[in-house]
Amino acid sequence: METLYARLSYQFRDADLLRRALRHCSAGKDNNERLEFLGDAVLGMIVSQLLFHTFPDASEGELSRLRARLVQQTTLAALARDLNLGQYLSLGPGELKAGGANRDSMLADAFEALVSALYLDGGLDLCAARVHQWFQPLLKLNKAQATSKDPKTRLQEYLQARKQPLPQYRILDIAGQDHAQHFHVECQVTLLRAPTNGSGNSRKEAEQQAALQVLSQLGLDDGA
Amino acid sequence: METLYARLSYQFRDADLLRRALRHCSAGKDNNERLEFLGDAVLGMIVSQLLFHTFPDASEGELSRLRARLVQQTTLAALARDLNLGQYLSLGPGELKAGGANRDSMLADAFEALVSALYLDGGLDLCAARVHQWFQPLLKLNKAQATSKDPKTRLQEYLQARKQPLPQYRILDIAGQDHAQHFHVECQVTLLRAPTNGSGNSRKEAEQQAALQVLSQLGLDDGA
Repeated sequence: METLYARLSYQFRDADLLRRALRHCSAGKDNNERLEFLGDAVLGMIVSQLLFHTFPDASEGELSRLRARLVQQTTLAALARDLNLGQYLSLGPGELKAGGANRDSMLADAFEALVSALYLDGGLDLCAARVHQWFQPLLKLNKAQATSKDPKTRLQEYLQARKQPLPQYRILDIAGQDHAQHFHVECQVTLLRAPTNGSGNSRKEAEQQAALQVLSQLGLDDGA
Repeated sequence: METLYARLSYQFRDADLLRRALRHCSAGKDNNERLEFLGDAVLGMIVSQLLFHTFPDASEGELSRLRARLVQQTTLAALARDLNLGQYLSLGPGELKAGGANRDSMLADAFEALVSALYLDGGLDLCAARVHQWFQPLLKLNKAQATSKDPKTRLQEYLQARKQPLPQYRILDIAGQDHAQHFHVECQVTLLRAPTNGSGNSRKEAEQQAALQVLSQLGLDDGA
């Protein structure tokens, strides 16, 4: 638990609360389901306020789309992986065997429960400070880089800033004649469970498309 | 505005913020749409926490259903009518003519924007205190009376506590023979725009059903 305290830069007064946040219902009673209910609302509120103040000219519709992108399951699961949350989860034997600790839904739920525990133990200001710390890099990239840099560069810079391994690109298939080849590639990053796919008339084009899909799942781009 | 301050038991430091919360987009720029975006999230958070603490034994599913019932449009519109919010709304000429100030969606949006304005101007504690004050009566009735009293009694007691006029019941139709009559009635309360309907083999049974529909729309019962 001490390593998690360090990652959160916060020492829980009530260590049981943090333990409960990391206890999946498959592990029995006193699990994180109720905390997840509250955390979903706390996270929604803090992210909404962050967007409200960061984008003073955005319409309600734009704000709603941004919020939906930031609190989507793949994005929350990636933030949970960045915190190594999976290794602290309590799971029932069945879930443990089935690799539940790396499932997106499991990680996203635990992330919401963690937000809730931070809020109940440390108050709104502390909780908001951590949420800002986690989401600010996503906002910054959404805003500043969306038009100026290509997806592969944006993805690489984001992962480097989070001290994560670089993305792995792999060619799945090259179809067509020499003069009109069509490439299929996949892109794997440690923050996402499954690789994404991309295709195009050059390897680079296909990789850019796969990188864009990763950005989208990380909450960094709408993938449009 | 002073009368609204009194109803809210709060004097806004930034009166423009309150004005914007009551300005519908049909009235032009600087309207309440962005505040509504934030208010929806702030309200969701405060109501979630209220439920979380009030019902320590409720499951996540029960809490979610209760929350959905409390923040539904008809319930928020009824709370807005209880505050007389419609008379403070700024609307464009078309909406004004069409009676928009009494439309549920308009009132519910303004209510959410008001919550947001209270939060931004007075902080979370002040905002939560007002939200609790508005929602506690709904929670109390949901909890204590749902099984113990009949719908007509519960509705009457709720309206009396809010200093609202008593419900008006009206027979719409009596069908069938003398020995097997079937009654259709409606029930009108000032907090809801449209009357509800009920039917049954006695006038009383039909009225109970119509009252139950009102309770459901006011967020006081799931109507089941």
